[in-house]
Amino acid sequence: MAARALSRLAVHVTLVDRRNFHLFQPLLYQVATGALSPANIAAPIRSLLKREKNVRVLLGEATGVDAERRLLLLSGGELPYDTLVVAAGVRHHYFGREDWERLAPGLKTIEDATEMRRRILLAFEKAERETDPLQRRALLTFIVVGGGPTGVELAGALSEIAQHTLRGDFRAIDPSEARVLLLEAGERILPTYSPDLSARAMRALERIAVGVRTSTRVTELADGAVTVRHGETGETLRAATVLWAAGVKGSPLGASLAASAGASLDGAGRVLVGPDLALRGHPEIFVVGDLAARNDDAGRPLPGVAQVAMQQGRYVAKVVGARLSGSPPPPPFRYLDFGSMATIGRGAAVADLRIARFNGFVAWMAWLFLHLMYLVQFANRLLVFVQWAWSYLTWNRSARLITGTDRQ
Amino acid sequence: MAARALSRLAVHVTLVDRRNFHLFQPLLYQVATGALSPANIAAPIRSLLKREKNVRVLLGEATGVDAERRLLLLSGGELPYDTLVVAAGVRHHYFGREDWERLAPGLKTIEDATEMRRRILLAFEKAERETDPLQRRALLTFIVVGGGPTGVELAGALSEIAQHTLRGDFRAIDPSEARVLLLEAGERILPTYSPDLSARAMRALERIAVGVRTSTRVTELADGAVTVRHGETGETLRAATVLWAAGVKGSPLGASLAASAGASLDGAGRVLVGPDLALRGHPEIFVVGDLAARNDDAGRPLPGVAQVAMQQGRYVAKVVGARLSGSPPPPPFRYLDFGSMATIGRGAAVADLRIARFNGFVAWMAWLFLHLMYLVQFANRLLVFVQWAWSYLTWNRSARLITGTDRQ
Repeated sequence: MAARALSRLAVHVTLVDRRNFHLFQPLLYQVATGALSPANIAAPIRSLLKREKNVRVLLGEATGVDAERRLLLLSGGELPYDTLVVAAGVRHHYFGREDWERLAPGLKTIEDATEMRRRILLAFEKAERETDPLQRRALLTFIVVGGGPTGVELAGALSEIAQHTLRGDFRAIDPSEARVLLLEAGERILPTYSPDLSARAMRALERIAVGVRTSTRVTELADGAVTVRHGETGETLRAATVLWAAGVKGSPLGASLAASAGASLDGAGRVLVGPDLALRGHPEIFVVGDLAARNDDAGRPLPGVAQVAMQQGRYVAKVVGARLSGSPPPPPFRYLDFGSMATIGRGAAVADLRIARFNGFVAWMAWLFLHLMYLVQFANRLLVFVQWAWSYLTWNRSARLITGTDRQ
Repeated sequence: MAARALSRLAVHVTLVDRRNFHLFQPLLYQVATGALSPANIAAPIRSLLKREKNVRVLLGEATGVDAERRLLLLSGGELPYDTLVVAAGVRHHYFGREDWERLAPGLKTIEDATEMRRRILLAFEKAERETDPLQRRALLTFIVVGGGPTGVELAGALSEIAQHTLRGDFRAIDPSEARVLLLEAGERILPTYSPDLSARAMRALERIAVGVRTSTRVTELADGAVTVRHGETGETLRAATVLWAAGVKGSPLGASLAASAGASLDGAGRVLVGPDLALRGHPEIFVVGDLAARNDDAGRPLPGVAQVAMQQGRYVAKVVGARLSGSPPPPPFRYLDFGSMATIGRGAAVADLRIARFNGFVAWMAWLFLHLMYLVQFANRLLVFVQWAWSYLTWNRSARLITGTDRQ
């Protein structure tokens, strides 16, 4: 969004990314659960910026910033800048227990998604060959940690796979006996939604056989076991597959901005930005998207969603444009919140929109429509539509591949 | 095919595969060149055999055969059998130079295809950042070794990517300056086709700027360089990307059959089978598909194509059925050859069919139609059709993702 908006100014734009594609993260859980293929939710960055002739795209990894010399450091090179826009996002966060990543992978990249898909499908395959009933029970137990939108959507999709997609596929096990548990440390799932919608989402999950446990904190992870605490009581749950959807941590570029440009970071490593999204003392460095920490007028932090990032990207181009033309700067950034939505499973969703709150089938259709529209390439809209329609009619998921090898 | 045909008999069938999906290999080159996603040409084996209730599917790796005790050895277990059908296929073959695999990957698995895609796209990305003109030239040179159908189809698709798909995507390089070279050790490409069609295919390739060199043998591979010999003269070609489409080698299960059941292997490690596709001295062990070596009535080896494998799979079920019912055995296996086809690029193909030989647009349409029909799942037919139609209209390839990490 920033590169596109900046391309309309008389400037040279260089977009550096370590991947050659733009990823539509809100649908990543559908790749992790075999409903879509990676390429369906990704588009080559070069294609997207083909017509913006003053935009150059470089495949490369930004490793740091030298604010004094105005250089972006790359692995194998450096790039001078007049204005720098950092939109490097976040990774998942294990709150100091980074060794848990191996045991409970998170969901931020295509590789994360195919690894998650591999683990989910492999658990059913291993259960089919397992003769020990306790071990088989553990293989058929799936725990999702974190009750935000990603966790809710993952748990819903997992339940659909077990209850419907895999029906009749196995001979020794009944996939519908699989247990899906959603653990949330806070008092309710979807904490950024209204309490009413949280409660509805919880009931909808329970209707499709997802066990939801709120106020339940993970205290220890081991291979095949999750130890949790709920109030005063602790418990160890046996589960072969644990998926992580709790907490985020800013890109290492945030730390580099702190060291080089004196930026302040919040507890999750996100960069505190001023009202114009620039760093204090470095008006030529902007931070936008999930990596930026900024509160709204009511003092609440802006949510880490695509809408915020897109609006911030466009806003930065406005600030730069005003500086170039010598006009007065635009008013401070304000997030125009159109609302949020999450699917809970087939035909069920919650929507907390600016204009209304609703749930159920209507919310689900709205979710499908909006997410289709936000896919940047027409071909992908068509492909995703075909797959969704097909899945709806047949309960099938066409991308159920176990690929790659064990990461551990 | 064997499992499906056997399922109609009063037998218990166990299908063991180390992958959870059936792969339609003839379209693998389209994954390697970003036209299709892996899941589009793969279908979960369990889904395919869902209704065959006497068929059990096991995800597992067969490591060998104990013919005397009638056991299939698995990594982590063993499986008794009365009748064994081995259809473990072939890998690519480097003629004793297995160290070349790292330098010039072949194309047999989904992972091979995404690795090839990664290398092809990465070469253009590196060329965009390269300032040394010689090095840039090497990055924009693509060499395909082997002029069989896979090599021809790969070279054609590579040329289309360079000439059309990437047009306008780069700022420092012109992708259409990329060179694609197809090397074939024999006298003509597509040696199993009629000489007339070979010549037409060669002209069609040259029309789309693929350099074809026949009677040219690779004598040495190094990082970024291919040494070839043509008659008495040698030459070293600089190329960052070398793709291998020459030669196949039987699965290690062939060697296990040789050791355990006294099977004879041909030079490529394929198992020589009798007229009923069973091993001499072990009528209960059948070998079908690419791993089986068998000549046709004219003394020519049966080609390693899907049609042969499918007919052989069905044939084995007939033999087993006759044994069970005590009827006389069916006549020796005969391959009913409907012909072969290969695409050369957009709108161009050659077809060497039983009923006619033709080339050009009509052959191409026939190729598209037949390959769509052979995809086993209706959803995949629809998805592939959408992507082919889209690519035809826009020259775009939607699955241009660089994923995974450097294998080396």
